[in-house]
Amino acid sequence: MSPVNDGRRRPVTLKEVAAKAGVSVSAVSLVANEKKNARIGEATRARVLQAIEDLGYRPNALAKNLVHGQSRFIGLVADAIASTPFAGQIIHGAQVEAWRRGYVLLVANSEGNAEAEAQAISMLLEHKVHGILYSTWYHRQIDLPAGLSEAETVLVNCFADDGPLAVVPDEFDGGRAAAQLLIDAGHERIAFINTVTPSPAREGRLAGYRAALADAGIEVDPALVLDADSAQEGGYASVEAVLASGATAVCCHNDRVAMGLYDGLRERGLRIPADLSVVGFDNQEIIAAHLRPGLSTVALPHYELGVAGVRALLDGGPEASDRLTIACPPVVRESVRSLA
Amino acid sequence: MSPVNDGRRRPVTLKEVAAKAGVSVSAVSLVANEKKNARIGEATRARVLQAIEDLGYRPNALAKNLVHGQSRFIGLVADAIASTPFAGQIIHGAQVEAWRRGYVLLVANSEGNAEAEAQAISMLLEHKVHGILYSTWYHRQIDLPAGLSEAETVLVNCFADDGPLAVVPDEFDGGRAAAQLLIDAGHERIAFINTVTPSPAREGRLAGYRAALADAGIEVDPALVLDADSAQEGGYASVEAVLASGATAVCCHNDRVAMGLYDGLRERGLRIPADLSVVGFDNQEIIAAHLRPGLSTVALPHYELGVAGVRALLDGGPEASDRLTIACPPVVRESVRSLA
Repeated sequence: MSPVNDGRRRPVTLKEVAAKAGVSVSAVSLVANEKKNARIGEATRARVLQAIEDLGYRPNALAKNLVHGQSRFIGLVADAIASTPFAGQIIHGAQVEAWRRGYVLLVANSEGNAEAEAQAISMLLEHKVHGILYSTWYHRQIDLPAGLSEAETVLVNCFADDGPLAVVPDEFDGGRAAAQLLIDAGHERIAFINTVTPSPAREGRLAGYRAALADAGIEVDPALVLDADSAQEGGYASVEAVLASGATAVCCHNDRVAMGLYDGLRERGLRIPADLSVVGFDNQEIIAAHLRPGLSTVALPHYELGVAGVRALLDGGPEASDRLTIACPPVVRESVRSLA
Repeated sequence: MSPVNDGRRRPVTLKEVAAKAGVSVSAVSLVANEKKNARIGEATRARVLQAIEDLGYRPNALAKNLVHGQSRFIGLVADAIASTPFAGQIIHGAQVEAWRRGYVLLVANSEGNAEAEAQAISMLLEHKVHGILYSTWYHRQIDLPAGLSEAETVLVNCFADDGPLAVVPDEFDGGRAAAQLLIDAGHERIAFINTVTPSPAREGRLAGYRAALADAGIEVDPALVLDADSAQEGGYASVEAVLASGATAVCCHNDRVAMGLYDGLRERGLRIPADLSVVGFDNQEIIAAHLRPGLSTVALPHYELGVAGVRALLDGGPEASDRLTIACPPVVRESVRSLA
């Protein structure tokens, strides 16, 4: 049954609810704002709730927050919401978990601009958020913004020296998973195109690749580890070096590098995976799922980072300064040839 | 000078501000909450503001909203924040304009799920938003969700029969701009790969292409208009038909179609733009800027849609049911060969 409020702009008032339920306005207010310890009989409470539903009354969440002396807001600062889907995936995960727990996510977008970021954090503090998730679109070390000292904070996809709890992707685990896709297909001469930019992804993924090879009894040949820009152009520029290395397979720092490598191989008349097996990293859907052939890769768990960030904020987590790592699962498509 | 609140969790209280300024708590409250018509002397007000700044006091935005009897929230419902950067660009534009005007954006993400959407709209209404921007990640007609009748609403990137004001991209203008890039380079035999999905983009861009050709005195040959899936796979599948048509250039429905076309042409040993000039649509940065060669395209103005949506909500716009169209500007890269 559709509430009678449909089709009109004026919101239903407490007074109208009170008239319908045959109780006082203050009784309606106590029920609507879920005031604890309020002395309201069960029958009255039921009548008020029925009238609220019949009329389509919207409780005032702001008043409810003030009554309770705390807000149901969780703030989320994101630095690149307009440039990649990564920030959106963190927001999605955080929102689903926040709503499930009765919280509302207040999103503030800084676009990596210090002034906008300070303004974003001020705005969140002025709205008396329960806590703040501070997120970055790629995994990195940050200097903790000053305003964050005024609220419970969890860092998402970033970390700080002596900073609060950080929820980050397990780069080592991801690098190992990427190499393992190739090892399982029988490859032994596996190149690794790394980024030139120092970052947890650069160090962690390479260490994971090395560990996977060592575990499989494959010697790590330093000549197979190449450096490149972490975009399509870097992959394209690496084609000659990969071919010269004698590798039968290659792990790319990310899906964009793999896309550039695809282009360079195709220009030379080479086929993937017949001539070279390729594995990416990120699972950036619009690229990985639509290259020819589809790119086997490892997923960055942005959605899960958002979920875990909210859980850590509401439930507490390991001690501050600790890091909570989230697994990067492999995603199998068609870019790896089995030598078995 | 850094406020003394740095480095501690406990927020500064009204009482501390009052003690520092040597005035009553209620005087501080009136100044901090910007209560209109409050009788506070200028000297007192100045002392309070100085104490607020010295101590790093954060006014309570929720209390301020209640004092003013209206909120400074603008709600934004987005349907695909986790899948594309498009929703993020709308959010970015809306947030920049909202902040400039003293409003805060409350973002609710529905991921296209009806239940989550109803919950999102309820949440926004309970927070007494000043109004709601309802946005979709691609331009389309919608059935207006019931809850929107309870708030001032502006539709962003979508529209509804008898619905509120809609801010949408000018697809016709964009289609014309795409064709014009090729006409200006001297092409006359220009193919058009359209999507098979009925949508304002399908109709509008094709009409714009036709108008550009007609204006240039070029006959529109129906054999040059092809249909394809609107992803990379559709472009790839269109290669034979484009080549068979004798076209020297092609407008693609979007950048993803162009990416698939690039792959198919390259597999046949053909070069862009030497053998075929290609223009995309969307300016999806991660694709268009990094294909080889860079893809000339037409930008979808998502950021500008967000800005215009907030302006229409706060300033009013044309009458409800009207549509406000935003231009789709051309972006020139290296995929068009000049025949001049």
